[in-house]
Amino acid sequence: MADPAKFRVGLLGHGTVGGAFAELLPRHADRIARITGLRPELSAVLTRSRGSFQDVLDGSDLIVELIGGLEPAREYLLAAMRAGKHVVTANKQLLSHHGEELWEEARVHGVQLRFEGAVAGVVPVIRVLQESLAGATIDRVHGIVNGTTNFILTEMARTGETFADALTAAQRLGYAEADPTEDVNGKDAAAKMAIIARLAFETPVHIDQVRYEGIEHIRPDDLEYARDLGLGLKLIGTAERVGDDGLSVTVYPAFLYPGHPLASVNGPFNAVTVESEAITEITMSGPGAGGPQTATAVLGDVISAMIPPASTPPATASLRIVSDVVSSFYLYLEVADEPGVLARVAHVLAEHHVSVKSVVQKGLEDQARLVMVLHPVLESKFFAAIEEIAALDAMRAPPRAIRVLEEEFG
Amino acid sequence: MADPAKFRVGLLGHGTVGGAFAELLPRHADRIARITGLRPELSAVLTRSRGSFQDVLDGSDLIVELIGGLEPAREYLLAAMRAGKHVVTANKQLLSHHGEELWEEARVHGVQLRFEGAVAGVVPVIRVLQESLAGATIDRVHGIVNGTTNFILTEMARTGETFADALTAAQRLGYAEADPTEDVNGKDAAAKMAIIARLAFETPVHIDQVRYEGIEHIRPDDLEYARDLGLGLKLIGTAERVGDDGLSVTVYPAFLYPGHPLASVNGPFNAVTVESEAITEITMSGPGAGGPQTATAVLGDVISAMIPPASTPPATASLRIVSDVVSSFYLYLEVADEPGVLARVAHVLAEHHVSVKSVVQKGLEDQARLVMVLHPVLESKFFAAIEEIAALDAMRAPPRAIRVLEEEFG
Repeated sequence: MADPAKFRVGLLGHGTVGGAFAELLPRHADRIARITGLRPELSAVLTRSRGSFQDVLDGSDLIVELIGGLEPAREYLLAAMRAGKHVVTANKQLLSHHGEELWEEARVHGVQLRFEGAVAGVVPVIRVLQESLAGATIDRVHGIVNGTTNFILTEMARTGETFADALTAAQRLGYAEADPTEDVNGKDAAAKMAIIARLAFETPVHIDQVRYEGIEHIRPDDLEYARDLGLGLKLIGTAERVGDDGLSVTVYPAFLYPGHPLASVNGPFNAVTVESEAITEITMSGPGAGGPQTATAVLGDVISAMIPPASTPPATASLRIVSDVVSSFYLYLEVADEPGVLARVAHVLAEHHVSVKSVVQKGLEDQARLVMVLHPVLESKFFAAIEEIAALDAMRAPPRAIRVLEEEFG
Repeated sequence: MADPAKFRVGLLGHGTVGGAFAELLPRHADRIARITGLRPELSAVLTRSRGSFQDVLDGSDLIVELIGGLEPAREYLLAAMRAGKHVVTANKQLLSHHGEELWEEARVHGVQLRFEGAVAGVVPVIRVLQESLAGATIDRVHGIVNGTTNFILTEMARTGETFADALTAAQRLGYAEADPTEDVNGKDAAAKMAIIARLAFETPVHIDQVRYEGIEHIRPDDLEYARDLGLGLKLIGTAERVGDDGLSVTVYPAFLYPGHPLASVNGPFNAVTVESEAITEITMSGPGAGGPQTATAVLGDVISAMIPPASTPPATASLRIVSDVVSSFYLYLEVADEPGVLARVAHVLAEHHVSVKSVVQKGLEDQARLVMVLHPVLESKFFAAIEEIAALDAMRAPPRAIRVLEEEFG
């Protein structure tokens, strides 16, 4: 096979996300070449101190804008689209202020303007609203779209500490920036909800039309009382149809009942629930921000701009299908209620290097039940042990085994 | 504006999903015409008893295949693609047996073959794996991809009833078919995991390579012991990288620790968690099957095939932005600890038609704290009440109000 043609990606901005993107792209270049038939390469980078936009534009097939802010990002994106280039951006401020102008320009010039990274990192809110749910009438969207505030509220609930202390912890762990103002006052979430509302309801929404409130005033007391009432506290963005022709877009701290799909979203995660009569609801969750996550969303957009839609590439990376893997098991045995049975079972397990994590024995008339949870082990070893155990005299019924999924192993 | 051109959709199959799709398409035709510039219409339907495939093919711009099964579905899809038509299918059996042949045909003829409805109804697993995560190296996918079994296991855990009784309940409620064999024995989930594994790991996976087990042998005992151990039981599909070059694809009942993202997925819902080093994990959940849900996924695919990729259509359906909506509130008041304060507060609330759902009063030295949760009310009324309450002599600090999100209202 001939070397694939090059696809030149011009990068504007080299901060946290820009830097992560510049690392990610070459690492995936081979795989992307297999998928798309084109080998992407970073042709030029514009930073605050070096490079000229015009040079980057002239030398690129696609422009990735990760500068942030309104200008010159707006001017650069408009110029790139006018030059017939596809563009990918993660700029929520820009889209929540000038989205209509930019989308119109993309339509006029027949280019793609992709922006998955602008809203919830790698959680695919934009694509799902624009594409998967294009056939649904959406009634309401609820979102936790700011990871910093969700981390702070989770910490306050967990430790009982104040907002100020939880913010300091968030900064120490890299979940809050040095200047966290727009995260904690709700403005960052408001920009994202403006974009979400625009897509969900086909209605132009400027960030100034989003009513928002932050979490600076939340006190440990609020979380304590909430717990007494069985509620959890999150910073929730809401975009919803009101009456026949109204749309409300808000960001407020809100208490959630435990059954709500967003109630279990903790730490720096983001999540969005989309409600529609035909589909009831779908929820998506994942890490909301961070360089690698947002860069992965940006790269997904770049690849989408490179390949024909809905193409399933040939299966080139053929892994071999394996059938013996490591699993944890729960094991249920009905045995004669007599001395030494547990010892015999444990002996067989040990011989096959299967180790016991926990065991419960219950008497039941003349029988006993042994219920065990075992540590992860190669399945072939486990089933060899089970075969031997099944043959023990003390067995009163065939052994029953069910796998246990642990987040920790694998 | 001139009438939009027609886009003719030919439908193969008129069962549960086909019927729902045939209803959904005309209902959304106006909106789709606004979005795509083309007005979709159902040009022809092939059922078991009427219509000819060739007529449907000749009279359509795109073919939707909802017959199910291997033949003649395979033959029809191949013929449609050879005729240069985009195709949309929800046929998991077909793709888990003949996926490579069909995807190859799509590539050769430069047409789209979309199949979101084949895996988890409207939960956008396919699109996210193929597009959003194209820039990520995936390590593992876990999924609850069969709603019938998840409903049955949820019922068994909730009521303590047997598999047979829970299955009967599922059939009565429409969550299980008259012949539930392939749902409860794991084969349906295995077909879906074969498709998911193919996309996540770029490796051909035939359904015969998926090791699977069902839930027919699960007993109320298992769920009871599991609860004692703090575990929940789900039918879990897993596709994971093993070592450097191995891939394991399985469907087994498995116990989950409470923190697992799939542990809280109950009833007939589906959910998929995708793990990757760069992104940690994202989880998507929603109703897995059912006519309207799968039809919505199919319609999303049809629309995607109609419009240029990543186009953000003009915002034509302009709703008006409203700022006064109905909300529930939590209200926190620090008041003088003297008789009659609660009565005065309650009186002001009542005058503004704000009604109290619950109230807790706690003494604190010479003050008291009143914490209330209020029933949903127009926010303007609530804030008018708060303004009056703030002016009461007995107030010792400004009132604090936080919204409460209820699933029930809205």
